[in-house]
Amino acid sequence: MHNPQLNKNKALIHLLTTEGLPRPILTQILDRAAIYVAEMEAGHKKFPVLTGKSVFNLFFENSTRTRTTFEIAAKRLSADVINLNINASSTAKGETLLDTIHNLEAMGADMFVVRHAQSGAAHLIAEHVKPGIAVVNAGDGRHAHPTQALLDMYTIRHFKGDFTGLTVAIVGDVLHSRVARSQIHALSTLGCPEIRVIAPKTLLPVGVEQLGVHVYHDMAEGLKGVDVVAMLRLQNERMAGAYLPSTQEFFKYYGLTPEKLALAKPDAIVMHPGPMNRGVEIDSAVADGNQAVILPQVTFGIAVRMAVMALVAENQALNG
Amino acid sequence: MHNPQLNKNKALIHLLTTEGLPRPILTQILDRAAIYVAEMEAGHKKFPVLTGKSVFNLFFENSTRTRTTFEIAAKRLSADVINLNINASSTAKGETLLDTIHNLEAMGADMFVVRHAQSGAAHLIAEHVKPGIAVVNAGDGRHAHPTQALLDMYTIRHFKGDFTGLTVAIVGDVLHSRVARSQIHALSTLGCPEIRVIAPKTLLPVGVEQLGVHVYHDMAEGLKGVDVVAMLRLQNERMAGAYLPSTQEFFKYYGLTPEKLALAKPDAIVMHPGPMNRGVEIDSAVADGNQAVILPQVTFGIAVRMAVMALVAENQALNG
Amino acid sequence: MHNPQLNKNKALIHLLTTEGLPRPILTQILDRAAIYVAEMEAGHKKFPVLTGKSVFNLFFENSTRTRTTFEIAAKRLSADVINLNINASSTAKGETLLDTIHNLEAMGADMFVVRHAQSGAAHLIAEHVKPGIAVVNAGDGRHAHPTQALLDMYTIRHFKGDFTGLTVAIVGDVLHSRVARSQIHALSTLGCPEIRVIAPKTLLPVGVEQLGVHVYHDMAEGLKGVDVVAMLRLQNERMAGAYLPSTQEFFKYYGLTPEKLALAKPDAIVMHPGPMNRGVEIDSAVADGNQAVILPQVTFGIAVRMAVMALVAENQALNG
Repeated sequence: MHNPQLNKNKALIHLLTTEGLPRPILTQILDRAAIYVAEMEAGHKKFPVLTGKSVFNLFFENSTRTRTTFEIAAKRLSADVINLNINASSTAKGETLLDTIHNLEAMGADMFVVRHAQSGAAHLIAEHVKPGIAVVNAGDGRHAHPTQALLDMYTIRHFKGDFTGLTVAIVGDVLHSRVARSQIHALSTLGCPEIRVIAPKTLLPVGVEQLGVHVYHDMAEGLKGVDVVAMLRLQNERMAGAYLPSTQEFFKYYGLTPEKLALAKPDAIVMHPGPMNRGVEIDSAVADGNQAVILPQVTFGIAVRMAVMALVAENQALNG
Repeated sequence: MHNPQLNKNKALIHLLTTEGLPRPILTQILDRAAIYVAEMEAGHKKFPVLTGKSVFNLFFENSTRTRTTFEIAAKRLSADVINLNINASSTAKGETLLDTIHNLEAMGADMFVVRHAQSGAAHLIAEHVKPGIAVVNAGDGRHAHPTQALLDMYTIRHFKGDFTGLTVAIVGDVLHSRVARSQIHALSTLGCPEIRVIAPKTLLPVGVEQLGVHVYHDMAEGLKGVDVVAMLRLQNERMAGAYLPSTQEFFKYYGLTPEKLALAKPDAIVMHPGPMNRGVEIDSAVADGNQAVILPQVTFGIAVRMAVMALVAENQALNG
Repeated sequence: MHNPQLNKNKALIHLLTTEGLPRPILTQILDRAAIYVAEMEAGHKKFPVLTGKSVFNLFFENSTRTRTTFEIAAKRLSADVINLNINASSTAKGETLLDTIHNLEAMGADMFVVRHAQSGAAHLIAEHVKPGIAVVNAGDGRHAHPTQALLDMYTIRHFKGDFTGLTVAIVGDVLHSRVARSQIHALSTLGCPEIRVIAPKTLLPVGVEQLGVHVYHDMAEGLKGVDVVAMLRLQNERMAGAYLPSTQEFFKYYGLTPEKLALAKPDAIVMHPGPMNRGVEIDSAVADGNQAVILPQVTFGIAVRMAVMALVAENQALNG
């Protein structure tokens, strides 16, 4: 099957989803990110990788936090960054979205970072951009949020060294999460032998078992002996029309408290994509505790986004 | 008559309107733009022309698209760019507008790119700025949009080589267009012998004939034998209180279809300032056809804006 | 008492308020600003002080004008600038504000410029940031606006040379002003022997006399023989629920007219923090007259903000 993310030499030219990305590519991204982490710890924050390149942050859906991480990453790579908040309603027709994209191409864009409420928007754009222009998916609908999944992989590798002996539990609102699906694909590809999903039935997508995960509805059972707890954010804002649990009820059964975390391995790490709803999906004692690696995730997230942008730009240039 | 755009050596120090700009100035802008087009095609995207200069994008009227083109152009010239979206209502009095301008001057502005709903706003600012500060009009009211007209001239020269044998038709909503008037002046100055305007009577300004154009109300007649078709955007949003044609009716009589375009010369080019209303002023078969030069216009627009900004800054510096 | 703005070597590492800042620190800021003023007058506008540093403009309250001055100052110092307009309501809980801050820290922030409607927000942030990160208060509630006060001090020193023989009158809406309090502290520390406050009783905070100022309710009396008239802006937008004078009434009694200004020393200077309400707190004849130093204030303001940002960054680096 054709993978639009890779060129004929199997090099990464877009980042759309972790789905279908082979292990060497994932490892290449994490290895490049490790270089940026080390450089930035040593006080080097500016790299000439994208000097003279124009990176367009195309946000069809507002996300200050995600936009900021990409803006910082691009500026550290010395790119010119143009932020565009585009009202999705004015580009409801696919045709008009492509007119917008072709106009920005003609202005000399080198890379599009795309956030869109509709699944597949980044794919659509990647299929239609001119050769030489890279597309990076910054989250689309419920489908994919690949840089978030990659920074989670970086974090796990950083703290656990290797994926081959790990048990990872993904906990919470899997149904509305654009993160969970990307995580499952990446973990699986990187050799994680046991991936668990812990959620109430109403917050699980149909057919999730077919992704090779073990499903639990009970926290006590699902957290037993895990090395990594990957919490999801309760997406209240996406639940229109769905069964909406009260936040108290959700916290009672699925909120991560010190008591529940004690069932995991003693050295288990706790991840969260942020922003946290304290007292809803996570207890403050856990969020601020010494097993939480939530702030290192943010730091690694900048490096991972730099790595992705650097690699796709380099491979697009070699391709051209 | 005093032309505030030129200094005593007849060098361009502001760009306010194409009206009154002599042919050597227009040619100088197009020639400088050609250099940037060639450099950017060769992969050079960053020029030290405005290093350390502060360019203020003053948008009293929202226009993401135009603001983006100036932001890109200024960043390619290495300027520091400050975007300011200013609510026009808070500066309704001319006096207060000038307070705003003088404050920004005092902050160390080197150039103002001004977009304003009121005709003459850029002129007013240019009359009151300190020597050494350049003003570039990014569109004011129905009056002028000179960089759009200049990029159209660049496009025509690029594809047709010369203006002296050309017939150019400007089609559509001339009444509400800030583009048409600027185009007519530029075409006329550059030696275009026949400029036609094709529009319903209700969308023509009074006295348009006095600009030296031939007026047509019938597309079939007006397009006959033309070298260039310059479509205008139907400005629905500006038509409050005016006769508003239904878009179906407009398309039937004035929309550019392959059938109507066939009446022009076989090698006629089709221009549009964007964003296009497909199926209103232009048929998709024309917009995406091989006579359309709409995307090259966008690319040339960046180079033309770079050329204008570079020239006015250089001439202001020499002046000072 | 511990002063969170100074490190153990008494060097400035945050700027939160002028209150408690010793005279040598104030003088150091003004002296550094003088260097930038001179350099910029000589045409040098770009300094490598913050190259590779990330400055976050955190505006929990909209202030285009103040944000712009900090953005310009940071860009002149070669920083990467990230603008974040954060809805204060989404971070109503202190806990969540700190989560936001810790996230931005983890992204690699080197400096936070903070504007917040609540007094003490910048202090709270400074108490919780990691060592090495500087916080600059860009205005909080009615409490402090230290860079505005510092630019006023710069302006006075520039035009009057020294503070030790001066009489300074602060005029207008002292109650709602975040500027007045900061001015009084700075003037007092710099040795100004007589500070007057001129305002109606309803626009004076309780206990203002305890700051060592002389209170006047009558302009004619209060302006007699002063060297500096520091006007305040009438904060109509902050007066919900308070006694709101009609603007005509306010102008009659407290608006600065040429007649009232004639009571001050003949070489008295007139300052205003902008934006001016002409005809409310100041007459246009004064605002545009030759005693007004309102536009030089703006220019000095850029240099003062550069000086503050440079010093806190340098001292944070030495500290680390």
